[in-house]
Amino acid sequence: MMKSIAVGLLGLGTVGSGVVTILKNHQDKLMHQVGCPIEVKKVLVQDVHKHRTVEIDPSFLTTNANEVIEDPEIDVVIEVMGGIEDTRQLVLQALRNKKHVVTANKDLMALYGPELLKVASENGCDLFYEASVAGGIPILRGLVDGFASDRIIKMMGIVNGTTNFILTKMSKFGSAYEEVLKEAQELGYAEADPTSDVEGLDAARKMAILASLGYSMNIELKDVRVQGISSVTSDDIEYSKRLGYVVKLIGTAHRKGEKVEVSVQPTLLPESHPLAGVNDEYNAVYVYGEAVGETMFYGPGAGSLPTATSIVSDLVAVMKNMRLGVNGLSSVSPQYEKKLKDDSEIFSKYFLRIHVKDQVGAFAKITSLFSERGVSFEKILQLPLKNKNVAEIVLVTHEASLRDYEEILVQLRDLQIIQEVKSSYRVEGGNQG
Amino acid sequence: MMKSIAVGLLGLGTVGSGVVTILKNHQDKLMHQVGCPIEVKKVLVQDVHKHRTVEIDPSFLTTNANEVIEDPEIDVVIEVMGGIEDTRQLVLQALRNKKHVVTANKDLMALYGPELLKVASENGCDLFYEASVAGGIPILRGLVDGFASDRIIKMMGIVNGTTNFILTKMSKFGSAYEEVLKEAQELGYAEADPTSDVEGLDAARKMAILASLGYSMNIELKDVRVQGISSVTSDDIEYSKRLGYVVKLIGTAHRKGEKVEVSVQPTLLPESHPLAGVNDEYNAVYVYGEAVGETMFYGPGAGSLPTATSIVSDLVAVMKNMRLGVNGLSSVSPQYEKKLKDDSEIFSKYFLRIHVKDQVGAFAKITSLFSERGVSFEKILQLPLKNKNVAEIVLVTHEASLRDYEEILVQLRDLQIIQEVKSSYRVEGGNQG
Repeated sequence: MMKSIAVGLLGLGTVGSGVVTILKNHQDKLMHQVGCPIEVKKVLVQDVHKHRTVEIDPSFLTTNANEVIEDPEIDVVIEVMGGIEDTRQLVLQALRNKKHVVTANKDLMALYGPELLKVASENGCDLFYEASVAGGIPILRGLVDGFASDRIIKMMGIVNGTTNFILTKMSKFGSAYEEVLKEAQELGYAEADPTSDVEGLDAARKMAILASLGYSMNIELKDVRVQGISSVTSDDIEYSKRLGYVVKLIGTAHRKGEKVEVSVQPTLLPESHPLAGVNDEYNAVYVYGEAVGETMFYGPGAGSLPTATSIVSDLVAVMKNMRLGVNGLSSVSPQYEKKLKDDSEIFSKYFLRIHVKDQVGAFAKITSLFSERGVSFEKILQLPLKNKNVAEIVLVTHEASLRDYEEILVQLRDLQIIQEVKSSYRVEGGNQG
Repeated sequence: MMKSIAVGLLGLGTVGSGVVTILKNHQDKLMHQVGCPIEVKKVLVQDVHKHRTVEIDPSFLTTNANEVIEDPEIDVVIEVMGGIEDTRQLVLQALRNKKHVVTANKDLMALYGPELLKVASENGCDLFYEASVAGGIPILRGLVDGFASDRIIKMMGIVNGTTNFILTKMSKFGSAYEEVLKEAQELGYAEADPTSDVEGLDAARKMAILASLGYSMNIELKDVRVQGISSVTSDDIEYSKRLGYVVKLIGTAHRKGEKVEVSVQPTLLPESHPLAGVNDEYNAVYVYGEAVGETMFYGPGAGSLPTATSIVSDLVAVMKNMRLGVNGLSSVSPQYEKKLKDDSEIFSKYFLRIHVKDQVGAFAKITSLFSERGVSFEKILQLPLKNKNVAEIVLVTHEASLRDYEEILVQLRDLQIIQEVKSSYRVEGGNQG
């Protein structure tokens, strides 16, 4: 039997405790797979005296990070402390000390992934980060192994549980955004400052990681166009329903030829779309492969045990590589140079809700703005408002380029007959090309 | 650079042609992953002169299987010819000749999987069969790698595209079973003799494979309780809808303690269940893990290119193992002895549709049959029939043991007031325990 593998943890919050629990509960199954015991040797915490629900020998705890990353006996460092700049330095140092690293830190990977993967590879170390995207779903390994012999055309993800919880409740009960956000905060599904979730930043980080891996290209956070859900109203959701759509916060990464686009935005999905039924705090990633067609991976996006399960799966992969002596080979550098589509190359359908003054010829004026740019309508819904001089019009366009659509929006807002452009969202068309 | 890997194919039908196409189209990506070229060297066909749509050097074709399995230069044999007994002999001989085998043959794996895996392991060979279950979905690798550090409690699968197509159309258009089956046959989604699909045998084979792998136990085809969809009526589907359910042919493998049950049967799923939205010919496998909770893998269940993609992913895995010198290690023998639940240990809710003679006290008699065994009702729907002397009653029970439920059914059929028991199906309750 091989000697045991020594693991150091940076952090012992909910996820870190989950890792300790799983390593203990599944000792036999893990032994059966990797052929040797796994031993947690040191854990970095903020306060060694704090009461903890997870059982752990107090002598393993330390407030000094060096006792983890400088310990020559530790083989693998698991980073579950969060944070960016300080954490980056610790991870870099661990890698330079030839320790393999498993992390759940999407912020770190979205910002410094390429640098960290390069240092890992230079030091013959593995750096795995399955848990950083869609916590309990083995999506990164699925992209690499499952699509080994295919070409990924499109990825769409519901990768933020908080916003999916909010939109699901709004859709189910017709509630207002603010009301549901408050409920989500009370239930612990949303943080006191929900900005990062509701404005789409958290999802954007995950999409940068997914797109980089799926397209073997170095996609950065700044390459992702982002729109959050804070302006989505219950009216938007109600009208979408009438037209056969479900509103979700969707991260999209689409490739055409050598160019890609990556965005996070509220999106109307046809009810029949596989992602349309993904509700509550669940996550899912839809992948369209040239050969395989439509596939989807569904599961919990967060939570102590689901996230810890992904981390331990990464740890098992590190240990199998150790046994085979092939660590540091899987972090291949991007195969392609980054090429982003410009606005004239990004095509989509759009949902538009506007308040129009009730005047003769008003609708014709709106129509001509669209038709001048060759954009026609797929669906039109006109509704009376309480104020009898104003009509509410809901439009779904056929495909238009982003450049054309944004120019139309600017001119629309200038029209004297338009009282207000209430909302505007992308509509998923199902066209994979 | 390593020397090229030589591959032999047994069969060149739709799937075999897909494999040849993918190996050609993705040469660069495959090279990048495995570090050497892949070369198709020999292909067993029935007729070397037949016109083929796939481009292949005619000198590679042979009608003599020995030219594939006895060729010392061939490293990997891909079996896509189908069939059972003769194919088994060819695969056994290939393994004894130290050739790795990739197969898409669920019939073969469901019947002879344990024998073949044992011979593979004895000869230091890999035997991979990802494409045998849910063609384009990497579910077998997902079960092994993704659940490495978890305990699988329940697996539910929509693993037969033909029956899912039929049930989807029946539900969408209210059509009769026979009508939709005919349409499916015309479209090529169902075979001229549809028995194996519609009576659940095909799904049962896949569930035996999934359960064996997921529970590390040798589950045989005969251990799977099977009920097909040929008796499902449009009325059953309509009433299910009214009660908030979707009818699907579901393969279920459930573990409690050390005991498992495996079945394939028409099942009512709550509309909110992740599998409820899996429509048309798509497949999906839902896995409930103790730590991770609910996950689902969705994709195409068949088709030339999706199935071929899974086969080539297996081929990549074989080649990585060859490079590392670790072939034959992944086919671990079952960790546990098979233990099946008996009927008193299998619990479920049930949907029951009966025609009752309209007599005073009829419903009380029915109710007492159930309550004597401690079974109560969750939902009741009573509807008038054209024949005014008969009422149609639809019941959904709370959880009952299979033994109790079947005894109730027998006694129910004996009651003088019962004109007919029209249908009886399992109802998924969401209880994972």
